[in-house]
Amino acid sequence: MPPERKPPFSFELCATAGRARAGLFHTPHGVVPTPVFMPVGTQATVKAVSPRDLRELGATMILANTYHLYLRPGDERIARLGGLHQFMAWHGPILTDSGGFQVFSLAPRRKVDADGVTFRSHLDGSEHRFTPEKVIAIQENLGADVIVCLDECAAPYDYEYNRQALARTHSWAERCKAAKTRRDQALFGIVQGGIFLDLREESARFLTALGFDGYAIGGLSVGETKEEMHAVLDLLDTLLPADRPRYLMGVGTPQDMLACVARGIDMFDCVLPTRTARNGSALTRAGRINLRNARFADDPAPLEEGCSCYTCTHFSRAYLRHLTMANEILGHHLLTLHNLHLMLTLANEMRVAILEGRFEEYRMSAILAEES
Amino acid sequence: MPPERKPPFSFELCATAGRARAGLFHTPHGVVPTPVFMPVGTQATVKAVSPRDLRELGATMILANTYHLYLRPGDERIARLGGLHQFMAWHGPILTDSGGFQVFSLAPRRKVDADGVTFRSHLDGSEHRFTPEKVIAIQENLGADVIVCLDECAAPYDYEYNRQALARTHSWAERCKAAKTRRDQALFGIVQGGIFLDLREESARFLTALGFDGYAIGGLSVGETKEEMHAVLDLLDTLLPADRPRYLMGVGTPQDMLACVARGIDMFDCVLPTRTARNGSALTRAGRINLRNARFADDPAPLEEGCSCYTCTHFSRAYLRHLTMANEILGHHLLTLHNLHLMLTLANEMRVAILEGRFEEYRMSAILAEES
Repeated sequence: MPPERKPPFSFELCATAGRARAGLFHTPHGVVPTPVFMPVGTQATVKAVSPRDLRELGATMILANTYHLYLRPGDERIARLGGLHQFMAWHGPILTDSGGFQVFSLAPRRKVDADGVTFRSHLDGSEHRFTPEKVIAIQENLGADVIVCLDECAAPYDYEYNRQALARTHSWAERCKAAKTRRDQALFGIVQGGIFLDLREESARFLTALGFDGYAIGGLSVGETKEEMHAVLDLLDTLLPADRPRYLMGVGTPQDMLACVARGIDMFDCVLPTRTARNGSALTRAGRINLRNARFADDPAPLEEGCSCYTCTHFSRAYLRHLTMANEILGHHLLTLHNLHLMLTLANEMRVAILEGRFEEYRMSAILAEES
Repeated sequence: MPPERKPPFSFELCATAGRARAGLFHTPHGVVPTPVFMPVGTQATVKAVSPRDLRELGATMILANTYHLYLRPGDERIARLGGLHQFMAWHGPILTDSGGFQVFSLAPRRKVDADGVTFRSHLDGSEHRFTPEKVIAIQENLGADVIVCLDECAAPYDYEYNRQALARTHSWAERCKAAKTRRDQALFGIVQGGIFLDLREESARFLTALGFDGYAIGGLSVGETKEEMHAVLDLLDTLLPADRPRYLMGVGTPQDMLACVARGIDMFDCVLPTRTARNGSALTRAGRINLRNARFADDPAPLEEGCSCYTCTHFSRAYLRHLTMANEILGHHLLTLHNLHLMLTLANEMRVAILEGRFEEYRMSAILAEES
């Protein structure tokens, strides 16, 4: 009999502070300290920055989008070229989503049935079909460290739609788990159920009974209130196992991250820092700065006093405004560096505060402005 | 009497090989080994790369455009913010052009007279006027190490137009020299005269008699043949002083740079490497590569075998094609890095070959494909 191999994944809980958790998520491409913010690399690139920029920023794990990469350049092509890590020259951990959210938000003329979902490409209108088995096969071709189950993200306030969508999501989770063949990829289930606590509880119980390497929480930050989101997280904290990472999909702002770590979340991703950067806005602890505002035209100050990022240590708001007004690529790059730096730094500060037993104190003093 | 100050500029001729020259151009912001290729930073940024990228690539001197910066964000604003070096965080040498070429190629509804040129902004249609004195004042506000005289670039084959434009260019050169007040900026005259050797000779004799810190050669690579361009350079090599740098404006391809160093040119600038990069094309010693070509879709090779740039040491043609097809900023960035690396490396290789007395051998073996 061969010796038992150490599983390539484990989640080590290092410390807690209230419900906030500091952990170490072990993956084949490295250890991810949590809480973690994962920059979004939709098309196999975090927009406007390079892998060496990401490393310098202290990013440990990034996300890529199954829907986009399946359509272009194609998951089979990426597999032929050595997989996603090799293709994009990012040798740290990667998570791919299931494509479900994109199909239900981006693709025109989608039609869902019990077996899967048929949709048209937003690129060329061509028809495609995702089933649980197909989505696992695509993600196995891409080769990320963490893959997730196909799910259906329903409108948050429609109970009947959420009930029906949840039945499909659960059936698809079973089929995804059965379809998975690679031992070097972790599979996360996705808890759904909108704002409805009974559906969320049903979902958490169903998925934890099936058993996954981690649990994603989908269908939040899609229009519901903060109170509704927090109520769902308060419930799930009591239902999800402590020894598995919890990933809140598509969230969020600096304020969200702080509030949700306090509710037991370990992993985050969001396009906010990269997208707002390309719109000419900087995230700071004191609130958002829109560089199109004329008051920055002669401002010699950095985006954020005391920030140690390359942008803040070299360039003025006046220069960044000039780049923004002139639509220069360097403006997108420099704002992206700063915005990612803030999110990654906040996640790291939270981790240290949890480890040092002063998370609540940190949370109160983090001097984050109210969201505008 | 105060002790005589060392002039902040000098051009040290280190070696020659035939007419090719290796020199050291001393400026207040550093020494520029020549031949030198200057990346173009039109709007106070070399498009799609940062100052630290430029330093890593080995760029020593860059160019910025007076016309663009005067219109946006304004030369007075840049002066208030500490000057161009501080504004764009590039602390090496900078050259600003006179704005003449842009006024005569970009601005709508221009009207030239003996005193100057009136034009409308390509940004908002507002009316502006450049005179020699105004252009020097703008460049003194910007604060580059090297500034140049206002000139008029005429259509290369129109003798009568060139004769009249040359008279203005010479009168403006006198006024520019008289208007200059800063001692820490070198002033270059611009030789004009189209393809007409008598006008070029007249221009070189006039400007060298006036006396400048260096000589720019304008009005080439604007539609004439290579033979015509080379004939002008062959003539000017006999007329321009050996102890001043010679700058061929807006040229050119790798092949041009090799051919023109062989004809005594020291300094080059061109948008070719940065502009072709943003169009999805790579410059290589074996010719241009257009990454939109489907044959690169599965190509795991780097852009150029043996190239030591970040792009070639980390990414495949297949990935770069994907970024290009998806119009990702990272594609523009990575192709720009490679293209600038090639131009800067060629200039450096030429310099070393001249210093080692084997320029002709290098030139023959540089294995550059014919221009396509």
